[in-house]
Amino acid sequence: MKANLNSNKEGEEFSNLGITVKKADDLSEWYNQVVLKAGLADYSAVKGFMIIRPLGYAIWENIQKKFDERIKKRGVRNAYFPLLIPESFFNKEREHAKGFSPEVAWLERSDEESGQRLAIRPTSETIICDSFRSWLRSYRDLPIRVNQWCNVVRWEIKMTKLFLRTREFLWQEGHCIYETREEAEKETLMFLNEYKELIEKELAIPVISGRKTDNEKFAGAIYTLTTEALMPDGKALQTATSHYLGQDFMKVFEVQFTGRDKQKHSPHYISWGMSTRLIGAMVMVHGDDKGLVIPPRVAPVQIVIIPILFGDERDTAVLNAAEHLKEELQSEFSVELDARPGYSAGWKFNEWELRGVPLRI
Amino acid sequence: MKANLNSNKEGEEFSNLGITVKKADDLSEWYNQVVLKAGLADYSAVKGFMIIRPLGYAIWENIQKKFDERIKKRGVRNAYFPLLIPESFFNKEREHAKGFSPEVAWLERSDEESGQRLAIRPTSETIICDSFRSWLRSYRDLPIRVNQWCNVVRWEIKMTKLFLRTREFLWQEGHCIYETREEAEKETLMFLNEYKELIEKELAIPVISGRKTDNEKFAGAIYTLTTEALMPDGKALQTATSHYLGQDFMKVFEVQFTGRDKQKHSPHYISWGMSTRLIGAMVMVHGDDKGLVIPPRVAPVQIVIIPILFGDERDTAVLNAAEHLKEELQSEFSVELDARPGYSAGWKFNEWELRGVPLRI
Repeated sequence: MKANLNSNKEGEEFSNLGITVKKADDLSEWYNQVVLKAGLADYSAVKGFMIIRPLGYAIWENIQKKFDERIKKRGVRNAYFPLLIPESFFNKEREHAKGFSPEVAWLERSDEESGQRLAIRPTSETIICDSFRSWLRSYRDLPIRVNQWCNVVRWEIKMTKLFLRTREFLWQEGHCIYETREEAEKETLMFLNEYKELIEKELAIPVISGRKTDNEKFAGAIYTLTTEALMPDGKALQTATSHYLGQDFMKVFEVQFTGRDKQKHSPHYISWGMSTRLIGAMVMVHGDDKGLVIPPRVAPVQIVIIPILFGDERDTAVLNAAEHLKEELQSEFSVELDARPGYSAGWKFNEWELRGVPLRI
Repeated sequence: MKANLNSNKEGEEFSNLGITVKKADDLSEWYNQVVLKAGLADYSAVKGFMIIRPLGYAIWENIQKKFDERIKKRGVRNAYFPLLIPESFFNKEREHAKGFSPEVAWLERSDEESGQRLAIRPTSETIICDSFRSWLRSYRDLPIRVNQWCNVVRWEIKMTKLFLRTREFLWQEGHCIYETREEAEKETLMFLNEYKELIEKELAIPVISGRKTDNEKFAGAIYTLTTEALMPDGKALQTATSHYLGQDFMKVFEVQFTGRDKQKHSPHYISWGMSTRLIGAMVMVHGDDKGLVIPPRVAPVQIVIIPILFGDERDTAVLNAAEHLKEELQSEFSVELDARPGYSAGWKFNEWELRGVPLRI
């Protein structure tokens, strides 16, 4: 039936819009076509940057919602820290500065008061530690758990790839401080497990948890835990990380508290993050030769109803039945009824398949 | 009773944390103290930038949620466009470039391919018009309504003020294109009315709608509609704007569609925005000499229960009753039970009053 419906004029036109290479033949080209043709994202006029189109952004909103609920249950509160970071902050933690400085984008303008250069944040450890210093007084204030949803810029030199490696991306970065090393390490692992559950349950991507080697760990961390997903080409893709940062940042930013023993102590610091890269992982793992396949739990449209219309008096009955079905389903699912005139059912079927809607009726 | 409870040691300590000037005596100083001491925001190490603390951000999340629901009902879809804008984009629309160029923050790095300078977005008309060009083909694609929630940077020369005027702020910017001028102007007004309802119903701030003078209108607009709130000093504060931009941006960015008559046409363009400045307006209008007052519909904590504890065997009964009350109320409201040891009920009462919780029990 699909073949039949395809053989009209719109069906032929559609073939140009469809994916023209097989996933098994050329993974990289297949990936680019799926992301662009399904309408997840576009290239930007600025090299290495991307436009997240409404379909891609709606998936990101669903991921955000599910993860935000999880971390709020863990006592995390959202906040927002400035986009621009003074140079002196960067240079305080030597390993951190060394790791990030090649990728930093500096502004032409500098800070009027200090005369310092200003960087667009590649990550916010330094500016958040500066706030921890002013917020923290006593052991009773601990733990402090904050998170921000924001954009970051890292001037990648490697080839960029939509969602998987871009110079700007959207992410969340969680930053927590604790009274003891034991608590901090326990929660480093706890947040990693939240990622693992999110990615496996909501995105249906199996991941392996582990520890990064010293060469690969976050610049400034004692160690980095990671969840890695297996890509179709056999490579591992880092999907989320959780870092135990120890007390170095605390010492250089003078973050201290008065302990139960009335003495000054440095807290133990962790940070953890995941980004829009997850959408790239989702495309890689679930997509097929017909296009995108979105896991049902994060799909903006879970079911699409495509009525087969004949252009005569029978259409009213078909549309009524379709409308009725939609009402029945939408108490539990996100449903769209595609009654657009001027497109055949076959063309629509192909288009929704390309765009990855889990169920087409 | 409050006076009694206040006269213990914590009560005395608290007076330093409270607001030390009256709203009627020194509005500007009163405002700064409320924002800082209630924990809405902090100054940043970079001049003109701010840190939105968890309480301030939770209010912003509530505003976002309510407005996002409204615009999605109006057919708007969220997306995300790049932070960086090439210089040539800016210069395409002469009035727009003239209006924004003094406030633009440029990067040291330029685009590798075009060699162009790159600006941090002060607003995204130009980069979104570039996408409209590639998305739009036929009148059947119209209207297109997109919105983004993001940060923008405008290098203000005037004195900055927390939430009310900062060099970076969070906002939403909606961008829509239509087949006809009539539709575009109708929706310019419709989105203004959505703002008016949001601000009046959710934030309980009365606003006056009107049209900006030609000197005050958005750079590049035919006209700008605005909602303005009355501040305690008698000045008007702009709380949201909606612009009818006509066809100029469309022409310089070559955004065209094939019309019903098979001819090429330029669509009609509108944009509309509101920002974290709304939180500043809320403080100004509702705050009092004891601190912040958050309107119930956007309050992260709507009710706080403060049990009066005696430090003896009666406390168990008091805490049980409080816990019971909390369970009863939290089906309908966001409730917090403040059972922290080491602080008196009077101290807690004052602290929650400073932080603007609508109801304290």
